[in-house]
Amino acid sequence: MSAVSIKEALSGRRPEGSEVTVKGWVRTRRDSKAGLSFVNLSDGSCFDAIQIVVPNTLANYDSDVLRLTAGCAVIATGTLVPSQGKGQNFEMQASAIEVTGFVDDPETYPIQPKPHSMEFLREVAHLRPRTNVFGAITRVRHSLAQAVHRFFHENGFYWVNTPIITTSDAEGAGQMFRVSTLDMANLPRTEKGAVDFDKDFFAKDAFLTVSGQLNVEAYCLALSKVYTFGPTFRAENSNTSRHLAEFWMIEPEIAFADLAADADLAEALLKYVFKAVLEERADDMAFFVDRVEKTAISRLEHFINSPFERIDYTDAVKILQNSGKSFDFPVEWGVDLQTEHERFLVEQHVGRPAVVMNYPEQIKAFYMRMNDDGRTVAAMDILAPGIGEIVGGSQREERLELLDARMAKMGIDAAHYQWYRDLRRYGTVPHAGFGLGFERLVVYTCGLANIRDAIPYPRVPGHAEF
Amino acid sequence: MSAVSIKEALSGRRPEGSEVTVKGWVRTRRDSKAGLSFVNLSDGSCFDAIQIVVPNTLANYDSDVLRLTAGCAVIATGTLVPSQGKGQNFEMQASAIEVTGFVDDPETYPIQPKPHSMEFLREVAHLRPRTNVFGAITRVRHSLAQAVHRFFHENGFYWVNTPIITTSDAEGAGQMFRVSTLDMANLPRTEKGAVDFDKDFFAKDAFLTVSGQLNVEAYCLALSKVYTFGPTFRAENSNTSRHLAEFWMIEPEIAFADLAADADLAEALLKYVFKAVLEERADDMAFFVDRVEKTAISRLEHFINSPFERIDYTDAVKILQNSGKSFDFPVEWGVDLQTEHERFLVEQHVGRPAVVMNYPEQIKAFYMRMNDDGRTVAAMDILAPGIGEIVGGSQREERLELLDARMAKMGIDAAHYQWYRDLRRYGTVPHAGFGLGFERLVVYTCGLANIRDAIPYPRVPGHAEF
Repeated sequence: MSAVSIKEALSGRRPEGSEVTVKGWVRTRRDSKAGLSFVNLSDGSCFDAIQIVVPNTLANYDSDVLRLTAGCAVIATGTLVPSQGKGQNFEMQASAIEVTGFVDDPETYPIQPKPHSMEFLREVAHLRPRTNVFGAITRVRHSLAQAVHRFFHENGFYWVNTPIITTSDAEGAGQMFRVSTLDMANLPRTEKGAVDFDKDFFAKDAFLTVSGQLNVEAYCLALSKVYTFGPTFRAENSNTSRHLAEFWMIEPEIAFADLAADADLAEALLKYVFKAVLEERADDMAFFVDRVEKTAISRLEHFINSPFERIDYTDAVKILQNSGKSFDFPVEWGVDLQTEHERFLVEQHVGRPAVVMNYPEQIKAFYMRMNDDGRTVAAMDILAPGIGEIVGGSQREERLELLDARMAKMGIDAAHYQWYRDLRRYGTVPHAGFGLGFERLVVYTCGLANIRDAIPYPRVPGHAEF
Repeated sequence: MSAVSIKEALSGRRPEGSEVTVKGWVRTRRDSKAGLSFVNLSDGSCFDAIQIVVPNTLANYDSDVLRLTAGCAVIATGTLVPSQGKGQNFEMQASAIEVTGFVDDPETYPIQPKPHSMEFLREVAHLRPRTNVFGAITRVRHSLAQAVHRFFHENGFYWVNTPIITTSDAEGAGQMFRVSTLDMANLPRTEKGAVDFDKDFFAKDAFLTVSGQLNVEAYCLALSKVYTFGPTFRAENSNTSRHLAEFWMIEPEIAFADLAADADLAEALLKYVFKAVLEERADDMAFFVDRVEKTAISRLEHFINSPFERIDYTDAVKILQNSGKSFDFPVEWGVDLQTEHERFLVEQHVGRPAVVMNYPEQIKAFYMRMNDDGRTVAAMDILAPGIGEIVGGSQREERLELLDARMAKMGIDAAHYQWYRDLRRYGTVPHAGFGLGFERLVVYTCGLANIRDAIPYPRVPGHAEF
């Protein structure tokens, strides 16, 4: 007799009649008049629970088995036999049931065997992994993350973890969280009465990073192909279904590369990870189709099989202006595209993912490379049907004099970026990269409506969290 | 003609006479009297640079090639031929050299082709990836991280990212960094004059996590086998060669498991990742042996080939007391072991890695499982020759009444841990896990002396950082 995962027990790899032990948590129990109980047991190794048929001849049938409710922890030993019912091919005929943990007050146990609203589950984040939907999200999330690492490894990239606590603001944009060990009830002061950050842990202002891009560029200009995959933070008080204060980002950076190569890399990465999920997580994806978003699988298949359209920003604006659609936000050259515009472009105009390239300089960050037209920069957004922007990237300005000019124009103090300027003084090369928000990738893959359901623990400003 | 990495060009997979393009940064240039220049070019894809033989017949030989210095960025096209010299099997005979970036003021370029002290390189963190040693560390670090993810994936574990910003302190121990968006120059106050954290971003005190363990336990008790791999933070003002304020941790957690299973898992993981590095990074590891730590390879081989010794803490104390050694810190039952004790145990007494188990309850965290003796808990440390502690883990207290008793004894407010207590009320099971500091793993693998050289950017309190 050997202990196996429920995934293994249901796989058909164990011959009929094998004696095995499985361990997990009860989903449901049903008792027949014939003196049998049917216990569905889940261990999270796969979507399905295994059905365990328990005869009333077991010594602890009355004392334990008949007390089993949703959430109880059970070690079941028995024989694998072909299943009589629909669904699984195998079930277990139990010869022993051991209960390691009952459920206190089963009536109030939050995870009952019935559908729960996502709102309710956000309130019981420590228990929601026990539901079908969060089990599935966790497994899909895992497969996406693994596929990301595998894709880069197979393509000769090196993973670099950039600083989380930083003293620079990558974009001059996102609101940042301060990191401090000062006693806020009793702040140290300078002679002039200002807060004395010399006394803080790092002896200066310190914040949580909004992006690892600038840092990873230094590694790119030595190792050629690198990527980050780590947490980033935005202190924007955006309690919406699309924003998180804390999220993971994937940021590859490639040397001797232009915007076209950057777009090709993003297309290859996205197709690779979606393919991996469809192959590895067919059971979980079928559940999402059934219960969450009926196009969850078909839209990924369409995504994988479509060559991405490339559209110049200037052309995209014309398309939108000539669309005859009335948008909430009017479109004209020079404005950033809103989700309504992005979704119109890919869902109604192009009908497949699109890379919009070469945005007006005034709406893009200082480090993006000036195009020869002198008014656009080599930036791109990748838009996907059903969600809008999923990737944002650019070729970086590798010419020091142009970088300096752009920083001056935007009022950015070059003195804060000496090390970044050094990268242009010492063996500069064309290079490019992009950012892919990991939770947005999870949202898109699973067909979720709220990004807070794409993370293990929901984080909401002003809200309980762990 | 195709662009290839230098790793590919040197691999022997391209037939002699192939025309290829390589792109990278100059390490050295040497000119011969016969009208040839020998340029060593590195792109970080592997340890070695490729030798490029440039004839003075190239049109830009005088204007460009003779100006090449360390750090210049070059695109070289030519033919792969067997190498005449020692070292590589292949070199390139160049037919074209394009320089994308020279080095401003070569005399002051920090990364000269000579050995630099690690102290000096910490001051030029943005350029140190261009050195042999940081190129090698980055590649080894990558292989370790990939192997960690692969090991868990192959063994049915799911990756869970636990919150970075948190309101709970996992150990009641480590000093924490506060995370805040309050204006410190003008703090909001309550009527009583205290700082009003209701006005802060999360409407309460928030900190950077010291460990994901408590959070990941909730996932373990639904998905059975899970792990974290993400950053953790300790605001300890320990400017030593062994401590970092920000570091990455690997924290697996397994359900239906005891301390022995936990130790087995850690042993299997460590052996797997060291094997992967020896296989994938033979070139980089040979460099570490040559320049950094002459036992770098042999000690990993020894580690892989040794079954770990299991020692009870109580026996370890007796061994140390009977050793005849005089330690800086005296040993008696009840004290925590210091590095000098740990290294004596594994280096002189056991001669291979050891798992020390069952520590006195008073020196261990509240969540560790009480043993039947009533005075020790099911904790373990894994000690390795050459470094001391590399893994710390425990079986968790899954019995609610014992957890509550321990929290009460330690003065921990159970009200802060209701969700954690819930995990014991609803289907509790024996479970266990451990923490492996990723940077310590890198230090040990490469044979480094200072943990600040195991991270991409050094972070020292009161010190310049990025």
